[in-house]
Parts: sequence; C-alpha cells; structure tokens
Amino acid sequence: MLIVKKFGGTSVGNAERIFNVARRCIEDYNKGNDVVVVLSAMGKYTDELIDKAKEINEKPPKREMDMLFTIGEQMSVALMAMAMDKLGVRAISLNAFQVAMHTTSQYGNARLKRIDTERIRHELEDRKIVLVTGFQGINKYDDYTTLGRGGSDTTAVALAAALHADACEIYTDVDGVYTADPRLVKNAKKLDEITYDEMLDLATLGAGVLHNRSVEMAKKYGVQLVVRSSLNNNEGTVVKEDVNVERMLISGVALDREADRISVIGLKDEPGMAFKLFDVLAKKHINVDVILQSIGRHNTKDISFTVADTQADEALKALQANKARLNYQDISLKKDVAKLSIVGAGMMSNPGVAAKMFESLYNAGVNINMISTSEIRVTVLINEADSEKAIQAVHDAFMAED
Amino acid sequence: MLIVKKFGGTSVGNAERIFNVARRCIEDYNKGNDVVVVLSAMGKYTDELIDKAKEINEKPPKREMDMLFTIGEQMSVALMAMAMDKLGVRAISLNAFQVAMHTTSQYGNARLKRIDTERIRHELEDRKIVLVTGFQGINKYDDYTTLGRGGSDTTAVALAAALHADACEIYTDVDGVYTADPRLVKNAKKLDEITYDEMLDLATLGAGVLHNRSVEMAKKYGVQLVVRSSLNNNEGTVVKEDVNVERMLISGVALDREADRISVIGLKDEPGMAFKLFDVLAKKHINVDVILQSIGRHNTKDISFTVADTQADEALKALQANKARLNYQDISLKKDVAKLSIVGAGMMSNPGVAAKMFESLYNAGVNINMISTSEIRVTVLINEADSEKAIQAVHDAFMAED
Repeated sequence: MLIVKKFGGTSVGNAERIFNVARRCIEDYNKGNDVVVVLSAMGKYTDELIDKAKEINEKPPKREMDMLFTIGEQMSVALMAMAMDKLGVRAISLNAFQVAMHTTSQYGNARLKRIDTERIRHELEDRKIVLVTGFQGINKYDDYTTLGRGGSDTTAVALAAALHADACEIYTDVDGVYTADPRLVKNAKKLDEITYDEMLDLATLGAGVLHNRSVEMAKKYGVQLVVRSSLNNNEGTVVKEDVNVERMLISGVALDREADRISVIGLKDEPGMAFKLFDVLAKKHINVDVILQSIGRHNTKDISFTVADTQADEALKALQANKARLNYQDISLKKDVAKLSIVGAGMMSNPGVAAKMFESLYNAGVNINMISTSEIRVTVLINEADSEKAIQAVHDAFMAED
Repeated sequence: MLIVKKFGGTSVGNAERIFNVARRCIEDYNKGNDVVVVLSAMGKYTDELIDKAKEINEKPPKREMDMLFTIGEQMSVALMAMAMDKLGVRAISLNAFQVAMHTTSQYGNARLKRIDTERIRHELEDRKIVLVTGFQGINKYDDYTTLGRGGSDTTAVALAAALHADACEIYTDVDGVYTADPRLVKNAKKLDEITYDEMLDLATLGAGVLHNRSVEMAKKYGVQLVVRSSLNNNEGTVVKEDVNVERMLISGVALDREADRISVIGLKDEPGMAFKLFDVLAKKHINVDVILQSIGRHNTKDISFTVADTQADEALKALQANKARLNYQDISLKKDVAKLSIVGAGMMSNPGVAAKMFESLYNAGVNINMISTSEIRVTVLINEADSEKAIQAVHDAFMAED
C-alpha cells in the first residue's frame, strides 16, 4: 500500500508532538507500506513570520511573502526527518523545488498544476519515508508560491492522486467529521462516511475540517480521504463518492458566524439590475454568498446577500460609491447574523427536510431572516444571538431519532 | 558597474539593521550600478536552528541539517526584499535552487562547483537589486548543501567571479583588516591594502576577518575584495594580488588562542614514524597545524604539533589508542598555549624579520615554545598567559617606526 498522510501545524507544534507523528508514520512503514507524509508549518510559526514581515513592510510583495512562508514547512519536514532518524528509520525531506510541485503563477493563492513523482518514487523504492512540504509550490518563473488557506490538505490530495495512492489520511485535532461542531452541540456524532458533495457543502459552510479546494480535488481525481485525529487511533470519517444509502437523512449541521448581511432596498425592477450590482462587487473580488431577491413596492425590488465579515465594509463602501448608477433607495449592513445549514445527500429523495428544519427553529423561537437551498443543502440566516440554541434545536430534530 | 556586496548575520540582525543595509545597497543602485547582495542568516538564527535540531536528535543527519540551515538565509533575503520594496526599490530574493548554485555533494561542508548566472543577469537587466542566499548550494542529487564556516563570503566571491563583477565588498563589523586585533593592541592600524597570500595567512592564523576559502577563491579568480564596515562609510581594506611595494615590512600580527600542543616523546628514529603518527590523526579528520620534530636521546625523536582545541582531546585519545603501534615513550597535551604570527609579503626580501620578532619577545620576557616559518610568515608558540603582552610587543617592534 502507498499511503499519503497529512499532519497540520498543531500536530508538529513541538518536539514531543513531532515524535508522536513520527511514530505513527513508522507504524505504517513497518507494516511494509510506502509512506508519504505532508506537513504544515509548526504551530503558530506562520503567524510569527507574518509578524516579522509586517515589522518591515505592512504591505510586503506577495512573491517575497511566499519566499518567507515556505521556510515554515521546510523546517517541519527537516525536523521530522531528524526525529525519524532518531527512531532508526530512514526518511528524507523534500521541498517544492525538490519534488517538484508545479503551480500556477499567482503568489499567495496558487493552484497546483502538475506534480513530478520521479524523485518521490525513487526515494520510496529506496525504502525511505518521504516527507513533503505542504502548502507550497513553484511556478513557471521558478519562484515559490503558496496555495492559500488549507493548502497542505490540497498538497496531500494532489500527491495521493499523482502517486495513485491507496489511501489519503488527513490528520486533524478532531476525530473526524461531526454532525455538528462538538463544541456547540453536546450530542454531536461523528460520521463514519460522507460524500464529497456533502463535505464540500460543510467545508464551504464553515464546518472547517477540510478546505473545499482539497475536497474538490479529491472528488475530481477520485481520491478517497480519511479525516482522523492525530491524538488517538479512532477510525475517523471516510470521504468518498458513494456512501451507505441506509444512512441518516442529513449528514451535518453547520454554523457560520462569520457572515454579514447587506440589504439593498428599492432597486428599480428592470432587467440587468442584479448584474450591475454584483458586478460592482466582483470587480472588488468580493465573494457573495446567499442571495435573496424580493419584490418591493412601486416597481422596485430589494436584494439582500451575505458576505464574509472581513469583506463587508468594503462591499458596503463599493455599493455606496455606486449609488447614483445603481439608483437604489437605501442600503444597510447587519453584522450580527449567522448562517445555519443542514447538509445531506439523503434530502434529495426526501421531501419535507426543509420544513422539518424550519419547524424546529420555530419551536426554539428562532426567527429566520433569509432562506437559500440547493439539492443537498438548506441554509437559513438567523440572528447571531440565536445561533447556539438554533444549531442545538436543528441537530436534535434530525439526529435524536437516529 | 556590477557590484557584489556581502553582509553577515549581525548586519541583518533586526529590522533596523535590515533597513540600514537596504539603504546602503540602494545608494549604489541609484548611481546606476547593478547590485547583487549576498546575505547570511540573521544574527543568532543559525544557533536557534541548531538548538531546535538537537532537541530532537543530538546527531541529526547532515543532509537534514542543511535542509534546516538553509531556511535562515532564505528568511534574510525575503525580509531584505520587503525592506527594499518599502523604500521604493525593486528587489528580488533568490535561493540556491533559483540561482542555481551548484556544489559538491558533501553535506555541511560542500564546495561551490558552478554558478548559473542566467537568472541573476535577467533580474539585473530588469533593474532589480538581486538578493542571494549565502552559505547554501544544491548538489547533484538536487539537495541543499551548506558551505561550512565563512560560507557566505565564499558565495559572494564566487558570484563576483561568475558575474565578472567590478567589485566585491565584504561588510563586517570592523573597518577592515588591522595590523593586529584592535581589541588587544591599542595602536593597531587599519591596512589600506593587503595581498591575497597575506590575507590567507592572517585568516588561517586566527585574525578571522575573512574565511580562508573565500580568499583562496578570490586569489584563484582574481576577484579584488574590499573588507569594510557595515556601520560606517570608511574606506576599508582592499585585498588583491599586488600591493604598494613601499609599504610596511609586515602587514599584521595575528594571535590564535585556540591552539593546543601535543608532544609525543621518544618515538623510534626510523623512517615512516611521522607518517604513521599523522596518518592516525588524518583518519580521524583531525587537522594538524604547526609541526616540530626534534632529535631525542638514544636514537629516538620527539614530535610536537598544534591542533585546534576542539580536536585536542580526540587527537590525544587516538594517539594513546595506537601507543603500541607507534611505540613512543610518553605523550602530553598542553592546553594553555597560543600561536602568535607575523605576516607580510615584505619579509621575503628582508632578512632579519624573524630575528626582530624573537628579540621583541625576549625583551618582553616571553618564552618561545616552538617556531615555524613560511616565506611570508613567522609563527611562534607561546604560553597563553603571555599572549597579550607578546602581541603588543611584536606589534610595537614592527609598527611603531612606521
């Protein structure tokens, strides 16, 4: 078996944890498996590097930020190789140049294009554990790039695809994917299996165990993922194409408190209005999430949408600057909202899922601001103050009977 | 003009110093020069990395140590690029892969073989200041290597040679090369010029401004060096092939306290004895310095030699382990000795230089243990306790009249 294992920054945060990860990998290696390990930068090291950079230049060139960031993972893999050597196992660390890990040219947010597997295969044949720097790549200019948020997961999935690995294990500090955030919902349950699409919706909706780009890539290349804890030997959650049909109606309830709502009131009810409005935001690279359009009075319409709280002020400003052109009556920003979603492939063939969710919220006294649905997802916008009782109520409604 | 400038770890030890170096480089750049800057790792960063490694493995694999070490210079060049950007100048950082900087394969102590200049020339043509990681290279396996002590000086000289630079400036925390260590000898004078050979002897003998490998390379490729301070605009010392003939008899007095003496007493006076003895040490990679052989009584001979104090105990042990084979009567290690040397191309054509040195030591009441000479150097071994009065006395004898 060829196994790709990915460990995040917390898992390699100090010498003791590095040895824990090393032992875990050696276990698989000693069973005769080929083992490739993808590592992130240690604990808060990336933040330390950002601080160093900001001290010198508040707006450092992105190319140079990537040049600085990439040292973090190189430190992790080098130290891990030393730990494995100490434990008597041959290991070798490789950075993005050595692999090589080809990406698009955009610094700070590059996408993987192609991975050369020759060096890795050579080292595996030599019976070494191969340690690869996550998150980083090189572009056509022979410069370092980084893959953006959750980049190390993407590295692991891409490596698993390129090497035709038999397994791709993503180690985190939780046991797997839960029906809801266990810190919010006491009786949240770990899922044994989940589909790529469900996982994608959960990732996008703020469940945050896996970054959506890595899930998209796993789906595209059919890489079966296992999400499991680096702290215990529990089974974890398998992410794959098809899951047991006898499973629960929904796979999870996700809460995203980092959403703000912007409402544009009294737009003229004429064609192209929505395009004009969202074009203003697209040009500022502002991602819009849930969109709701409603008919107002006197041939006007209102458009409300959610944006990430980090972009809300910028979005508001951009729309206010275009007030004359968009010709709306009023605009407002509401920051104390949260997005609550249920996700599940099962709801496609089960009418009434949305109604059940709304009922549970009504019973809990939670007011619904906006509603948005897809084939496998129902999302509602609620007041942020209601979020904890809302997630518990919805979770209870769907999971209690299970 | 194409100028290669090298700054050591102290010069880039914090944000303020990084900006100082940046401004200094930009000054030359703004005059229309092409500027290539070689940087070491920041201040004590390499020591921090060693600590991190030792915490995990007291004897880490050298390949992985180099993988770890190389992040130090990468941090320096990335931060420097950010500082120059902040000052409004375009700069680009390059590591050993990006240059590329080809070395022999030996980890921890590689030698530069070939430097590709294409990328650097391209960036210079683009009117960027090019920042290159010192100390590091890549070998034929596509692995990082490091160049050993003083490696960044070597990188700078090699780059200057490969790029046919018009100047190679080595910045340190002193004004240049002095006739003696200014901390020991109050009236020590800065030299305006010095030959490669003199500089080599001074480097080897513990004056320590430049590492000898970089001087050897400068001599081989005819790269004229300037050693100057990063803290002021003083002229510094030029290191080149020929210097003004009207100059002083000697160029400097060097003191090396890090020498120990080992004496092997009563070896059989037969051919091959010296070979056998030094072969034992060579096999342990112990460098022997000054060697003195003297005739003892009853067909025996004594051999004394100096070794670096870090290797003295190992040398003693190796020789004791081979006592039967070497068949000597006694062996002793003396740690409280120091090596005092005068260096000067002028002494070749001036007899009596050695005598003058011995006279000055005699007048100062300093006993001489051993003497060793070369064409441009006289070295004596003295008691370490005498070292300060000895260096002052010798310096006065040669420099006072000047």
